[in-house]
Amino acid sequence: MYKLLDTITGPADLKNIPREELPGLADEIRRFLIETVSQTGGHLASNLGAVELSVALHYCFDSPADKLIWDVGHQAYTHKILTGRRESFHTQRQYKGISGFPKRSESPHDAFGAGHSSTSISAGLGMAAAQDLKGSGSRAIAVIGDGSLTGGMAYEALNQAGHLKKNLIVVLNDNEMSISQNVGAFSSFVSRKMTGSDFRKLKKEMQGLLENIPAIGKDILHFARRAENSLKGFLTPGMLFEALGFDYIGPIPGHDLPQLLEVFENVKGLEGPVLVHVMTTKGKGYQPAEENPAAFHGVGPFDVATGKTTGGKPGAASYTGVFGATLVKLAEEDEKIIAITAAMPDGTGLTPFAKRFPERFFDVGIAEQHALTFAAGLAADGFRPVTAIYSTFLQRAYDQVFHDVCLQKLPVTMALDRGGLVGDDGPTHHGTFDLSYLRHLPEMTLMAPKDENELQHMLKTAIYAGRPVALRYPRGAGYGLPLDQTIQSLEIGRGELLTEGDDVAIVAIGSTVYPAQEAAKLLEARGIRATVVNARFVKPLDRELILGAARRTGCIVTVEENALQGGFGSAVLELLADEGMTDVRAKRIGIPDRFIEQGPQPQLRKDLGLDGAGIAATVEAFLTAKGQAALSLVK
Amino acid sequence: MYKLLDTITGPADLKNIPREELPGLADEIRRFLIETVSQTGGHLASNLGAVELSVALHYCFDSPADKLIWDVGHQAYTHKILTGRRESFHTQRQYKGISGFPKRSESPHDAFGAGHSSTSISAGLGMAAAQDLKGSGSRAIAVIGDGSLTGGMAYEALNQAGHLKKNLIVVLNDNEMSISQNVGAFSSFVSRKMTGSDFRKLKKEMQGLLENIPAIGKDILHFARRAENSLKGFLTPGMLFEALGFDYIGPIPGHDLPQLLEVFENVKGLEGPVLVHVMTTKGKGYQPAEENPAAFHGVGPFDVATGKTTGGKPGAASYTGVFGATLVKLAEEDEKIIAITAAMPDGTGLTPFAKRFPERFFDVGIAEQHALTFAAGLAADGFRPVTAIYSTFLQRAYDQVFHDVCLQKLPVTMALDRGGLVGDDGPTHHGTFDLSYLRHLPEMTLMAPKDENELQHMLKTAIYAGRPVALRYPRGAGYGLPLDQTIQSLEIGRGELLTEGDDVAIVAIGSTVYPAQEAAKLLEARGIRATVVNARFVKPLDRELILGAARRTGCIVTVEENALQGGFGSAVLELLADEGMTDVRAKRIGIPDRFIEQGPQPQLRKDLGLDGAGIAATVEAFLTAKGQAALSLVK
Repeated sequence: MYKLLDTITGPADLKNIPREELPGLADEIRRFLIETVSQTGGHLASNLGAVELSVALHYCFDSPADKLIWDVGHQAYTHKILTGRRESFHTQRQYKGISGFPKRSESPHDAFGAGHSSTSISAGLGMAAAQDLKGSGSRAIAVIGDGSLTGGMAYEALNQAGHLKKNLIVVLNDNEMSISQNVGAFSSFVSRKMTGSDFRKLKKEMQGLLENIPAIGKDILHFARRAENSLKGFLTPGMLFEALGFDYIGPIPGHDLPQLLEVFENVKGLEGPVLVHVMTTKGKGYQPAEENPAAFHGVGPFDVATGKTTGGKPGAASYTGVFGATLVKLAEEDEKIIAITAAMPDGTGLTPFAKRFPERFFDVGIAEQHALTFAAGLAADGFRPVTAIYSTFLQRAYDQVFHDVCLQKLPVTMALDRGGLVGDDGPTHHGTFDLSYLRHLPEMTLMAPKDENELQHMLKTAIYAGRPVALRYPRGAGYGLPLDQTIQSLEIGRGELLTEGDDVAIVAIGSTVYPAQEAAKLLEARGIRATVVNARFVKPLDRELILGAARRTGCIVTVEENALQGGFGSAVLELLADEGMTDVRAKRIGIPDRFIEQGPQPQLRKDLGLDGAGIAATVEAFLTAKGQAALSLVK
Repeated sequence: MYKLLDTITGPADLKNIPREELPGLADEIRRFLIETVSQTGGHLASNLGAVELSVALHYCFDSPADKLIWDVGHQAYTHKILTGRRESFHTQRQYKGISGFPKRSESPHDAFGAGHSSTSISAGLGMAAAQDLKGSGSRAIAVIGDGSLTGGMAYEALNQAGHLKKNLIVVLNDNEMSISQNVGAFSSFVSRKMTGSDFRKLKKEMQGLLENIPAIGKDILHFARRAENSLKGFLTPGMLFEALGFDYIGPIPGHDLPQLLEVFENVKGLEGPVLVHVMTTKGKGYQPAEENPAAFHGVGPFDVATGKTTGGKPGAASYTGVFGATLVKLAEEDEKIIAITAAMPDGTGLTPFAKRFPERFFDVGIAEQHALTFAAGLAADGFRPVTAIYSTFLQRAYDQVFHDVCLQKLPVTMALDRGGLVGDDGPTHHGTFDLSYLRHLPEMTLMAPKDENELQHMLKTAIYAGRPVALRYPRGAGYGLPLDQTIQSLEIGRGELLTEGDDVAIVAIGSTVYPAQEAAKLLEARGIRATVVNARFVKPLDRELILGAARRTGCIVTVEENALQGGFGSAVLELLADEGMTDVRAKRIGIPDRFIEQGPQPQLRKDLGLDGAGIAATVEAFLTAKGQAALSLVK
């Protein structure tokens, strides 16, 4: 079934295949990819576009001595298959399976891990510098998509690379489309090609210019300006990269293996930084994906024949969907509301807003830093910007949240989608640090809804708070609740008392509130009566409610889907200490101090004791240990 | 003495001055700047370079309706003087005085605050979008130095600006030098000018090309390549910005007021994004600063006649100096040690390293994100990179610390200079969040030395820990201690018991250890016997030592020069809670939940109760309140 692919257990085997058979191998890989991903789900379109590129790189270079670095990692499946992970490939993105991204701990061929965008040139330059210092003669090759080039750190790296002149190879995998569509001036510039009529025009302009060239002297500046004007219409991306100190080669048709092989063989002999511009087609070779690459960017299991998604019927509305619909609703009433995304209009639920209010919608590219400061600029001038960014990606803009938003107390709403455990994407994507990295910033208000209905009200609360507010909600479906028709601002810093009981207070935030209520029911069956609090606010805390619950029970358990260090539970510990409440015992439930691997959200929550049963068990054990702990405290 | 300047209380007065007298005004401003800064200290060289530029902008535009945004803020002194802050200018960077940076709360003319680099184009684009939505007709003008253009977020903003086509004006204030010297390919490109011989060469190449132009057809790609090659040598920065969608105007001589006025008047009439490239001279008009602009970047009080620093004799070696010298010492013995700075070789003490080991030293530009991932790339290949970045600037690379360093457990040493209160630079520069933003990252080791001698040992400990380590030390002088000749690795997670006492345990970290010891002495005189612990490690904590001190005294006070939220004290609270140590009362001393203004470090520490007397007073009050607090806890 896979005549050629069956012979490959690593890159050395690949090199035994005659060149002329490589296109056949590419076909087999493509078939294997479609077949497997149709069952596991994953990033299909981008990977189908990078099959020949990956084959050619492994054919011409010697991984792991040569370092292949895949930006983001949405294009590394063929690389994984060729480097000994074909047998385990059906486990990709599955619980305890291989990662959907490059991962150093998984294979020596994964020279550098990824998941977030725009890091490959930096890492590659570091490795190129390392080869140079070691005199190894090995190469570092960074493969980066055109979308990732909108991220500023890619430019920071290009800038230094062009200056350092180490032997770095950058492969620009240009499919004229990042996750949804490319934005920004650079993108339209990169896709510029010179045509025959461009050249006829160039010839005419140049001739006119040369005929009229003045004596070099006093008119030089005037002439320079004219020359520049006539030339600049003919700029190509090659010139830009050359200006930055790179040797530019391209554009190369990215599905033509003989051409790719020839180019990479030549490139091996070049000194200094080289940029190879490869044109590829997202979804190449699978018609449904070629026709709708956005739908096949990250996809669940699907039927190969039709391209239709298989698996579960549509369930409850997602938090993302409720966020997007609520924002449209609020914006209908208020023309000061602005929506900003960093290249994720679909992922963040902003597409309906973009359609309804195109003039108030801004997609800034994969540029979270700029997104926040751009929002701050709008807020400084009286608008109410809402930046919708995944929790893990807002990490990129931590300094801008500090410096441009909080320090200036500007009313920017930060909607953090994918807060908490995200599931299949794993440790690079879990949004489990946001409560910790945002809570210590002065002027910040930080909240998380217990369900999709509360999300509506919190979004309005945030937008009209007149100050920096971050609002964090989970990936996936809500509880299928009816949504209140009237959206109301909540009182800032006021939580919700859900259940009363004298034995223990469970204070939960966001997605852990329902599990905490479930735990309270399980505990009740064991004779333990719990107070359950929906904290709503991580900052400011509802001091009165939490202290009251602490006083009543003498025993408080906090629950959060966030790192235990510096998060919500720590805020409660700080409050108890500040109030001198020595008699209250406290226990924090949350994400332990390690990176959490991929897996379905319910599985991960179960493993970490964040579901109802887990919370109940921890609370019960904590109450049981109460006496013993007190005894151990011999002063 | 200041005939013209005396008439100006705001931009409206400026417009009453006839154009031909503006150069005279510029002279007066320059004189005033030199006179004032020679007494207060401050950023002199960059501000002397921007006098005419600032006068021209305020003359042609109408602040505050038009929005002037100054990148970093190292060039905004003239702006401050012209917008009503001349009388208070002698208080700049002084305790309770005006800020050395633009600050929204200080004046309506400060459209956007700054301090960190590369934010102005983003903020300006937000404001340009706001003007467009409001139909105000006002302009947003971002003034950015060439150094700031090495920061990736500036590029993110340029990229979106060129695409959006709003009326944004970017003024590139090009002094061919950022804080010390520019790095990167873009910088050498921006400074490129076309000369007469360039044009002769262009003419010759073009003629050759045109004579041999083939029939448009099958040879088109070959011809395109040749045409491109012959053109790309003539690229100018104007072309680059035009390619990105900007109208480019320049280069303009930046000290020629008539030309500046003419250009800005013209620019007001243009639609869409415009980039005005202005050439200025750092230190312009003050010979010592022109000759040595780096020394006059940020300068203390000096003698105007000689340019020599006045004030204090050289005191104890600075932490920065000890760091730099130690790194050289260690690198003599180990060729795997690499030093990386983000445009601050002097500020971070790496200049001696750069001189001694040029091939192992990398200045990446103002590009902290890239710096960390570049370091991670080197570490992935067996090197021991040390990134020396101010605490406040490492905030820019928070995501890279997470994604590229910690998640991959790579042995990168993060040397955080300026940890804690920095003094005159104020809230944008205080390094008072690092313990909070780094502590929650898994795999992180986080420490802070009590003095400059311990810094030596900690640096070695970090470099050879074989994992991510952040090492945080304060701005300014150490204690003048003799430095151990033999540098030794410390045991990770092991603190130091300094004093024993039964009444209270004071557990201090980093720069607060000596003040804590001082507090213990003051308390002793009041009959209170304190245990004092030098924690050394924020992560991992020395559990045994801290729990022992807690058991012994039943009463623990933590001290840190960091935010109280999520910092070192919270780590101790977490430890106590995890151990079920209910009987121990705890009090945290640190930076409260607000932004701290500028002032001398000793003054700020006094205000915040972080000096010996303040710590002693807090401890005593805490012990006194002990009984009362317990009583208030009626369950």
